[in-house]
This record gives sequence, C-alpha cells and structure tokens, in this order.
Amino acid sequence: MKEISIIAVGGTIDKVYFDAKSEYEVGPPNIAKVLSELNLSISYGVTSLMRKDSLDLTAEDRTLIAKTVANDPCDRILITHGTDTMVETAKALMAIAEKTIVLTGALEPALFKTSDAVFNIGCALGAVQSLGAGIYIAMNGKVFAADKVWKNLDSNRFETRE
Amino acid sequence: MKEISIIAVGGTIDKVYFDAKSEYEVGPPNIAKVLSELNLSISYGVTSLMRKDSLDLTAEDRTLIAKTVANDPCDRILITHGTDTMVETAKALMAIAEKTIVLTGALEPALFKTSDAVFNIGCALGAVQSLGAGIYIAMNGKVFAADKVWKNLDSNRFETRE
Amino acid sequence: MKEISIIAVGGTIDKVYFDAKSEYEVGPPNIAKVLSELNLSISYGVTSLMRKDSLDLTAEDRTLIAKTVANDPCDRILITHGTDTMVETAKALMAIAEKTIVLTGALEPALFKTSDAVFNIGCALGAVQSLGAGIYIAMNGKVFAADKVWKNLDSNRFETRE
Amino acid sequence: MKEISIIAVGGTIDKVYFDAKSEYEVGPPNIAKVLSELNLSISYGVTSLMRKDSLDLTAEDRTLIAKTVANDPCDRILITHGTDTMVETAKALMAIAEKTIVLTGALEPALFKTSDAVFNIGCALGAVQSLGAGIYIAMNGKVFAADKVWKNLDSNRFETRE
Repeated sequence: MKEISIIAVGGTIDKVYFDAKSEYEVGPPNIAKVLSELNLSISYGVTSLMRKDSLDLTAEDRTLIAKTVANDPCDRILITHGTDTMVETAKALMAIAEKTIVLTGALEPALFKTSDAVFNIGCALGAVQSLGAGIYIAMNGKVFAADKVWKNLDSNRFETRE
Repeated sequence: MKEISIIAVGGTIDKVYFDAKSEYEVGPPNIAKVLSELNLSISYGVTSLMRKDSLDLTAEDRTLIAKTVANDPCDRILITHGTDTMVETAKALMAIAEKTIVLTGALEPALFKTSDAVFNIGCALGAVQSLGAGIYIAMNGKVFAADKVWKNLDSNRFETRE
Repeated sequence: MKEISIIAVGGTIDKVYFDAKSEYEVGPPNIAKVLSELNLSISYGVTSLMRKDSLDLTAEDRTLIAKTVANDPCDRILITHGTDTMVETAKALMAIAEKTIVLTGALEPALFKTSDAVFNIGCALGAVQSLGAGIYIAMNGKVFAADKVWKNLDSNRFETRE
Repeated sequence: MKEISIIAVGGTIDKVYFDAKSEYEVGPPNIAKVLSELNLSISYGVTSLMRKDSLDLTAEDRTLIAKTVANDPCDRILITHGTDTMVETAKALMAIAEKTIVLTGALEPALFKTSDAVFNIGCALGAVQSLGAGIYIAMNGKVFAADKVWKNLDSNRFETRE
C-alpha cells in the first residue's frame, strides 16, 4: 500500500491563468506535477477531489472531505487546500482520531517564479511522515496543531494562536 | 530562544560556479538565502561551520560537527551537508541522545532551475519540528532514521536499507 | 544620451496577482526589473506611461502614446504593450517616420516560471538596435513589419499576414 | 527552406553538471531546448557541430566552423559559442561576405536560475533577422559589429572597442 495519500481540493496553489480572459481558475492538482518532477523514495497517490477557491467551500464540501479522509485506507493524509479557510476545514476533520492529517497550500500559485508551493509541499511531506495521529497545518515553514493556528491577513501568513 | 538551529557544512547544495575558471566551489549556505526569501513563522539561526565537498570531510571535521551540535543550546538541529557522506556524518552524531537532528542537502546545486534544494529544505524543516529525539536524514521526499538509509549511486537517491 | 528609450503601457507582461482578491492587476513595468538584473552594455531609460490591459486602451490613449514617442529625443523606441491590441497601436504609430519603433509584450505574465517575457524583451532589444526606421512587432521569436502581422487567437501567437 | 540556421559549438551556455564527479561538461545545445519550449513563428534548424569550451577551440575548429557556415544554404546564421574566444571566432568568419551571422552565448549555464541564456538567445534572434550581411556578436543586451567588441574580464561583459 502507498505510504501517503494526497487529496487536493483546490485553492491558490492550483490556480492557472487564461490569457484570453485574464482571469484565474483553479486547475488540476499542482502537487502531482511538483512531486512527479522529483526523484522520490516514498510511495504516494494523488486524488483530485474538488477544484475550489477555499472561500467557495461549503459545509457539504467539508463533510465530503472528512468522509473521504476517514474512508481512505492510508493512515497518513496530506491535503492541499486554499489558504483562506484552511483552518476551518482542519477543524472539520477533528473527529477523525487515528490518522495523521497535514493540510498545506500556497500563498502564490505554484506556477509563479516566487511561489511558496514547492517549499510548503516539502514541509508538509516531512511533517506527515513524522507526526503521530492528529490534524496539522504546515504553512510558512511551521507545523501547527490545527487548533492553534490562524491566517493573519495583515502579515499574509499563518501564525500561532494559543 | 530560536526554535531551530541550522548548521551548514557545505556540499552540492552550496556549490557556486565561477565562469573564469569553469569550476565549482562550495559557497556560503544557500539555506540562508532560501529561507530569507520566504515569509516564515518560525525562528531560526544559520551557522556556516565549514564549506566542504562531503567527500573531503575528515574524521576531525565530523568530531567538530558533533561537538558543535552537542554544544548548541537548541534541541532541534537541521544540518545541510553534501550527499556522498551524509550517512557517515549522521552515524557520527549517534551519541547525541537528547536532540532532534535532521540532515539534508541537494543532488543539484540550489542555483539550478531544477534543483531539489528548496523541496528538501522544506521537508527537513517539517521533519525537524515533528520528530522526537534522534538522528534522521530527509532526502528524496522521505524521512529516514540515520541507521536505515543509504545513497544508491545508481538511482542517484537515498533509499531505505534495513 | 541613452541609446534606447523604453515606454511601458501595461498588458499581460506587467500583470501582478493579489492573493486577497484573487485577481490580476497591471503593475509597474516588468521590463525595468528584467533589464536591471542583467549586466547590460547598452544605456536605456524606462518610462511607465500607463498601466492598462490592452483591451482597455482608447483612441486617446493611442494618441498619447504616439505623441510621447514622437517627442522622445531618442531615435530607437521599445514599447511594452498588451498583446490583444498591439497591432492596432503599432498602426497608430505609422505616421512617425524617422524612428525605429519595436513593440513587444508577453502571452504570460513575466512573473510566471514559463513566461515568454524575458525572451521577448531580448528579441525586441536585438531588433530595435538593428533595424532602420519603421514600426515593428517582436513576438514569438519573429520580427514583423507592423502592417504584416496579426495575433492568431487560436494558436495564441503572432503570425505573418500579407 | 528554414529562415534561420543555428549552429552550436559549445561553451558555458551548454554546460551541464554531473553530481557523481562534481564537474562540468559541455552538453547538447541548450538553444534547441529553449526554443522548443516557446511557441515560435519562425522556422529554424539546430546543428550541434562541436561541444567545446571556447578556450579549447583550435584553428582547425574555426576553419570547420567557417566552412560549415559558408556551405549552409541559409543566409541567416546564429551561432552559440563559449564567451572567452567568441570574438576570435567572429573574426575568423570575416571572409564570408553574403550572410548575416550573429554569435551569442551565456556567461552562466542555461540551466541556472539566473542565467542570461534565454535573454541572449532572444536578442541574437531579433538581431539576426534584422541586420544586413555581416558578422555580429549579441551579448549583454547589445548587438556589436565583430570588429568593435571585446570581452572585458573585469566587468565580465562584452563591451565596445573602437
């Protein structure tokens, strides 16, 4: 069985740009592309569950994410997600007791030269292999417990909230 | 006190190129540059202890690395290191019982477009925050216990060795 | 006096992304940033005349661009411009007889990893130094006379039109 | 017939790095890779004539380059070349009277994040389409006549020499 199951639900990390319309849309999971270009020694699978801006995620979407995670045969789950409601989704997964779940995403689309996507994916992957059961967020170089983190919109980063 | 202490000893990750001579040399720690360009929520310090190809590291160098790690007031240590003898240095740190130590590096210099450096640094940073005391290597997307890993020269990656 | 005068009027090449709103806006001239990072042997100046999607450019805007070019003391003018109406602006400059004018831009924002911006800027710079008086467009690796080019929306590139 | 014939003879632009030996070697022509990733509107062909550091080029090599250029059915020739003796090779082509020949290269290997290769290739391509017959060097954003340029080793760039 694969060591890590990756579930993508959308967000800035997956945003693509269509010149014709000069607008962004959420595309296929960039984590699949990033990982495929590396020569990895872990086994993983990527599921594209939905392609949504995180501000558009509904309670039904979160129920579906939780159900998908709970039913996944893998004990280590990495979720790529939009940043604006990542904390909310993390809290919606709290009832899942026996898995290690790490959420990550990006503040800039992965196709930007200066994107934090590759670094964040690395950080989340390091964390999800190393932690015991629980729900975590890996952003801005830090691994947070899901109930002790918020996105500070002014500094545009995730920070600890006791 | 800072959360993570980073010690750089050289290796491919820090290689720079001088056009005049068409040769590589080991430059200052690239991890400092990579982390400074991200908007991090962790505190860290970077020490440039030596600038060596890992094939040139001596027993004295390893003694110095071990002493430096042991004397560091920080409990979480990330070491950037050349890949060819990373496993050997990891084993030389085994006597240090109460710290979480993660070694990483890169198979391509950090200044290459296709380098694994940023991903590896992310992975090591995620791991060093998440693991209990012990010596680990974070390479090729996997976090290995230091006594269960080797560098497979044919596949050019770190793999598990039981 | 400087050898080349660069005038930026906006377009995809200068698009920046604001995470908060998940929208693009036209930012400051990226050509200034690109050229400043190279070690050039030519002298040039950059004027940010306007910051517009080229679909939003009006007849008044084109009159202003033509006046600015005509009054510029420099005989070699490079204009960065949105791609959708680049040909229209080029034609509006036809009355200017004694200058070498090259328009360029990008099909992807300069801050994208896969952007054509740096290549196009190089191509336009090579052309503007080498051509006699006239109006030209440098896009997709080709230098076109302004009256023999169109943007093919299906192939998303500039092509010759006799 | 193709519009532009490209001949690669090696140099820094084509340097690749082999981790095993921590040494550079001159690889296949990077200009072919760079151009293939763009959506070009010109037709071209790439010939890999030799793979040499330009300091290693001999009089025989220059005779071969000149013969190859002279015999090429195409009137517009772009040559990628090492920078240290680019001027010498350009002078060795002076006897070819009826072609437009532009030499370019890079001060940093094309696979570096900060390489000037893509910009230089763009600049040379813009110049080779725009100039009349003659021998030119396109480096550091400037198109030089071959008898009025030198590589200033102190500033690490090509400059005008009257």
